[in-house]
Amino acid sequence: MKAYRRGDENLAFLLRYENVAWYEAGVVRILDRRIYPLKTEFVACHSYQEVAQAIADMVTQSAGPYYAAAMGMALAAWQCRDAADPLGFLTQAAYTLSHARPTTAVRMETVTQGCLRAAEQALAAGRPLDQAIFDYSLAMLEARYRRIAQTAVHLVDFFPKKGLIMTQCFAETIVGAMLREADERGYDIALICPETRPYLQGARLTASVACDQGHEVTVITDNMPGFALGQKDISLFTCAADAITMDGHVVNKVGTFQIAMLAHYYHVPCYVTGAPDRQLPAIDSVTIENRDPEQVLHFMGQRTAMPGVKGWYPAFDITPPEFITAVVTDQGPFSPLRLAEYFDRRDGDDGFLV
Amino acid sequence: MKAYRRGDENLAFLLRYENVAWYEAGVVRILDRRIYPLKTEFVACHSYQEVAQAIADMVTQSAGPYYAAAMGMALAAWQCRDAADPLGFLTQAAYTLSHARPTTAVRMETVTQGCLRAAEQALAAGRPLDQAIFDYSLAMLEARYRRIAQTAVHLVDFFPKKGLIMTQCFAETIVGAMLREADERGYDIALICPETRPYLQGARLTASVACDQGHEVTVITDNMPGFALGQKDISLFTCAADAITMDGHVVNKVGTFQIAMLAHYYHVPCYVTGAPDRQLPAIDSVTIENRDPEQVLHFMGQRTAMPGVKGWYPAFDITPPEFITAVVTDQGPFSPLRLAEYFDRRDGDDGFLV
Repeated sequence: MKAYRRGDENLAFLLRYENVAWYEAGVVRILDRRIYPLKTEFVACHSYQEVAQAIADMVTQSAGPYYAAAMGMALAAWQCRDAADPLGFLTQAAYTLSHARPTTAVRMETVTQGCLRAAEQALAAGRPLDQAIFDYSLAMLEARYRRIAQTAVHLVDFFPKKGLIMTQCFAETIVGAMLREADERGYDIALICPETRPYLQGARLTASVACDQGHEVTVITDNMPGFALGQKDISLFTCAADAITMDGHVVNKVGTFQIAMLAHYYHVPCYVTGAPDRQLPAIDSVTIENRDPEQVLHFMGQRTAMPGVKGWYPAFDITPPEFITAVVTDQGPFSPLRLAEYFDRRDGDDGFLV
Repeated sequence: MKAYRRGDENLAFLLRYENVAWYEAGVVRILDRRIYPLKTEFVACHSYQEVAQAIADMVTQSAGPYYAAAMGMALAAWQCRDAADPLGFLTQAAYTLSHARPTTAVRMETVTQGCLRAAEQALAAGRPLDQAIFDYSLAMLEARYRRIAQTAVHLVDFFPKKGLIMTQCFAETIVGAMLREADERGYDIALICPETRPYLQGARLTASVACDQGHEVTVITDNMPGFALGQKDISLFTCAADAITMDGHVVNKVGTFQIAMLAHYYHVPCYVTGAPDRQLPAIDSVTIENRDPEQVLHFMGQRTAMPGVKGWYPAFDITPPEFITAVVTDQGPFSPLRLAEYFDRRDGDDGFLV
């Protein structure tokens, strides 16, 4: 994997936990998060169409698809390097990549449109389009990691000096960043992670990040958060979001809603990290993706139910604002009912996905 | 497997779904519910100690351990057939079998004490002790199945003519009995079953019973009941109980509490089948068993988390009475706050476990 050329410590630290997709001439390599950390394998995509398929197949998850799409745009630029109308080709690639998964299409378009603008500028300046898009992708990643580091500071302000924190699914780089921030303050933080079926992102990814950073981490199955909240002294519940609508609803990995509600019952605060999305004014602008039900009926290749049994696999659920204590952003915490204030506080819009 | 000698249709029907342990001279065979229905294998126990170990290892679950313990008592009688003090031997066996799993010890003792009484009477009458205990076990099973059939009638009184019903874990024979009752009334009932990690009793056992009886059944993962209750038109939630205390708390497979609470949020009624236990006056008389945390970190033999990650595995959780619409018994439905009335209505006490 190409060494990052800017030597940014924050980027290097967080890349370690996020394992984003990476472009080199002719290929995008994506860490296969479906099997990590049991196996560390990369899916090599030789066309943007293969990148879109990898996104649809959930080779990468959480924020991974956004960077896979950006790197896929760089690959598309390489594919059309001798074409008469590269921008036409890239426009098609932008559509295909951003629509690889329906629920995230609106946010994905922010990424692919940014890549298209970078390509237009490079074309006007006579520079290689793939390099321009790659540079744009890295700048987007740097901006995101800077925001995550800031978000971690605001999140850890709610942490006790010593405590147990419940997570859900894989909250990406924010898990690494919040534990780093807690460590720097000398806090003693342990995690409790529901395993997050069917892909087990909690057991495989979040637990690995915490374990790797030397924190005690306990995995439970997804039917245990309620009992755990009643039995253990859990300081708070925190998760990231696939989308936060302007009316205060959180769209995140299925299971988030029930944990948030259970936490509310036990008076355990629920902090959702991320930022609201102005392109999603209300929850009715979100389509929840139903994925292949066979995934629910299998575990790592083994069938769990007899033939004839059906499955249902909504990838996300919706947590209403009444169960969310605060949305914690790079600009600090906000009430889920006053998310417009985030944009008042944010200093300038760099145009990157937040 | 020995043919049942009384030709009772109800027993034959329900045995098909429960697969209880069965004693023959020198051996108790227990269906291995940890792998059924992917594989149909029986664990053969040649001593009561092996039966106790099989119970501890969860070879059989739900009501299975009670009948495994009874059949284990018959096996113990066979082991001590030439002993000078068979009742002393059986008293030791009763203790070992009833304490194989801590949470259920009180109810298990009802079974093993009944077996001891049967042995005492056989000894006085000069009859073979193992046969006497086997006969007692079958009579207990017949009485239980008769109660389950009655319970199913009262439960199905709450069913719509056409509807979707959510279950939890494996509600044993009551699933088979309620679907049979619904079929006889001409109702059109589909089930939605959370898979119930870590042993997948919902995906493997409950779904198999429903599928085998020709009902549509949909399996979801344990993080989906909340979203399913919000998205699908679910008529009611029903589950059985490992114990129902006289103060209206339900001890059942971990996950029951959070589904009951989610159902309450969505105004979906929650019907718990079973009967209260006079030996458990209040919830503080119940000890929740913590099982081997490694089970949570594995899925059908495969490790899910990296070395160093811990697990936590409470086998049961506690649902408080405010989330229970009714406890549905063989004597009809009761408020969880008025469970003493069950014993007023019950016509005579046959001394069997209820």
